[in-house]
Amino acid sequence: MTTKTIKDMLGRSSLTPVHEATSLLLDQLKKIRREITTCSLPDALDRVLAIDILSPEDLPAYPRSTMDGFAVRAADTFGASSSMPCYLEIDGEVAMGQMPQGEVTQGKCFRIATGGLLPKGSDAVMMFEHTIPIDGKMLEIVKSVGVGTSLINTGEDIEKNAPALPKGHLLRPQDLGLLAGLGIAEVEVFARPKVGILSTGDEIVPWLESPPPGKIRDINGVTLTALCKRLGAEVTDYGIVSDNEDIFFATVKRATEENNVVLFSGGSSVGMRDLGERVIEKLGSPGILVHGVALKPGKPIIIGLTNNTAIFGLPGHPVSAMVCFEFFVNPALRSFRGLAAITHEAKPTISATLDRNINSAAGRLDLVRVQLQARDNAQPLAIPVLGKSGSISTLSRAHGYFLIPEDAQGVHENTTVKVHLLQ
Amino acid sequence: MTTKTIKDMLGRSSLTPVHEATSLLLDQLKKIRREITTCSLPDALDRVLAIDILSPEDLPAYPRSTMDGFAVRAADTFGASSSMPCYLEIDGEVAMGQMPQGEVTQGKCFRIATGGLLPKGSDAVMMFEHTIPIDGKMLEIVKSVGVGTSLINTGEDIEKNAPALPKGHLLRPQDLGLLAGLGIAEVEVFARPKVGILSTGDEIVPWLESPPPGKIRDINGVTLTALCKRLGAEVTDYGIVSDNEDIFFATVKRATEENNVVLFSGGSSVGMRDLGERVIEKLGSPGILVHGVALKPGKPIIIGLTNNTAIFGLPGHPVSAMVCFEFFVNPALRSFRGLAAITHEAKPTISATLDRNINSAAGRLDLVRVQLQARDNAQPLAIPVLGKSGSISTLSRAHGYFLIPEDAQGVHENTTVKVHLLQ
Repeated sequence: MTTKTIKDMLGRSSLTPVHEATSLLLDQLKKIRREITTCSLPDALDRVLAIDILSPEDLPAYPRSTMDGFAVRAADTFGASSSMPCYLEIDGEVAMGQMPQGEVTQGKCFRIATGGLLPKGSDAVMMFEHTIPIDGKMLEIVKSVGVGTSLINTGEDIEKNAPALPKGHLLRPQDLGLLAGLGIAEVEVFARPKVGILSTGDEIVPWLESPPPGKIRDINGVTLTALCKRLGAEVTDYGIVSDNEDIFFATVKRATEENNVVLFSGGSSVGMRDLGERVIEKLGSPGILVHGVALKPGKPIIIGLTNNTAIFGLPGHPVSAMVCFEFFVNPALRSFRGLAAITHEAKPTISATLDRNINSAAGRLDLVRVQLQARDNAQPLAIPVLGKSGSISTLSRAHGYFLIPEDAQGVHENTTVKVHLLQ
Repeated sequence: MTTKTIKDMLGRSSLTPVHEATSLLLDQLKKIRREITTCSLPDALDRVLAIDILSPEDLPAYPRSTMDGFAVRAADTFGASSSMPCYLEIDGEVAMGQMPQGEVTQGKCFRIATGGLLPKGSDAVMMFEHTIPIDGKMLEIVKSVGVGTSLINTGEDIEKNAPALPKGHLLRPQDLGLLAGLGIAEVEVFARPKVGILSTGDEIVPWLESPPPGKIRDINGVTLTALCKRLGAEVTDYGIVSDNEDIFFATVKRATEENNVVLFSGGSSVGMRDLGERVIEKLGSPGILVHGVALKPGKPIIIGLTNNTAIFGLPGHPVSAMVCFEFFVNPALRSFRGLAAITHEAKPTISATLDRNINSAAGRLDLVRVQLQARDNAQPLAIPVLGKSGSISTLSRAHGYFLIPEDAQGVHENTTVKVHLLQ
């Protein structure tokens, strides 16, 4: 396991570029077998398909009208126009939810409503809007229609045995609708990823306790748990663990045996970071994948892997911890969920105008938190939320963030930036 | 209650522009009182604050170091550089999680790790990287620091009694982190909106049943339920209701008494639409707000209001029903959740290049479903997913959609379009 290293400004650390760290991690994770479970359709929302689904039947099973009007033989309407209408005899009516009785013969038509089954003999639907009733029996037609107009054919939505949804597909509301339409009552999905979360550091107390001087409440445990839950993970809380190496090692080891992903966060001090690295190395092969990335905030992250469990040593500062979650833990959880790689790389953003100059060091990816402010007749203004990476309130005040790439040394005032929402 | 009407191409309907329909609806809804409930902090994820929260204390409570290094008196470092270093005596060390013992006096410093409390007398932290240890007692300093460098002051994250989070704020993971940091164990939030869903039409059978010829499974009930659940609503299923006006009226009436929002969907036929309008009018004032919008797909929506419950008669075609949900039900549910209006109007999108010409009728908003395809060194390609609005599979194949505004008659090939993801 080698990681290409670049030196920081003082030449004392070796940092991995963000995209290399991500590739290294995801390449390792995709080799891991994911568990599969069966889930009833209504419970499958936001789960990920573990198998390709073929359609068990034609949808719709019969041709149906998509308009209110008249089931006709298209050939009977050829050449019809408002200056030269043609005339059809109304010979019947399609009752909703029933097989139509009778057959549409030449020069005749059946009344039909949206959703009605096309009667035998007809091959198109003439919308009401293009007809003028002469009396109860006779209809004037002011437009011609082609075969197949205003109807949905057998299997036109989806054909029997055609691919309905592929393995790795996230089941969104419309996908549950499609499967319901096909009568599929349960689906094979990937198991939810299991995540173990612990906080480290002798200065951390549980957030419900009142911290004595020198100690602070556990902010990261709460934030990280909520971030994982939003991604459909099952979270186990391993509490606050002492800086003592034996206790820390024992807890992390147990957490790796019980989860797909383990997150620990705590001191951003060199001592805590060294402790984290030693513990991951001791857990076994392949051990540490990445220690330190060219990202601000978020530089001191440690990423490791042992026995098919990914371990993330997140920085103690709440902002850095959350940024590392977005860049590394989020893709890892997507991978454990079984989500297929998307065919487009882009992420949705809001274009906004930066309201001041922002400097950045070359060689690292900078994340700038911003508030967005609406403007009349112009794209919103992006106003940087300044504050230290230890300041959780900057993340609550921020609507989103934009990135300054590794090869830039800053962004000028009035430049358009692409803002990712923190929603 | 009047709605400005515009005529469709054939002059037979009166349609309301989408933005007018939305304003009309939201203006009515904001007058309704929302219920408030108390929620423990971990359970408050994705709920909406019902009150302004002020910080009960300073965060942090004491000044803390944000770097590994030495607590110094900034004045002792003035003028220090690598060519002209200055020297300080290491006089102590700050233990993590403890009140520091002793005081930093002139010419002296204390060892301190990230997160450590600043000892009395010190007013800045000198990073390790700018120091050279001479021996265990003496330190060479190669850079000067100003007062407040590399530390976070008392109340710098948030001050006691300062606004922490405002009423109407969505509680995201980082917001729970902030509240945990302040020791706030429970919060007042708005109650989840209650939504009643029913499907209408004699041709609809429950999705778990095998439909006889002429009937189809209930797709919309499944899709709409999942859409509501994603928005944190509590959904009650009122099943499939007959086209019989008395039965339909009784069920809708009961649903309006038990919910904030009622959705019915069913036939897109004129008959069904008339039935829906009659039932909403009969329920009482103000009754129908909008019938028919200048939107494709989605034109035949009916929007009503009775006794503080919003009623949506959605088109029967699954695509139209989902589009109407996005444009009208989604904002209504946001309003019932108590979400404050956002300060920026923009929604995040992906810029993509349209791969063919698309026509559109002037005077209506057109929604075009697309797949996105990644390209090397270029923004993704947007490929329209063609298909009828009765075809649910087009929504499963689509990655997102773009809009053609009312004043345009189409979009040319190679134009950049802004794609909203359906994720």
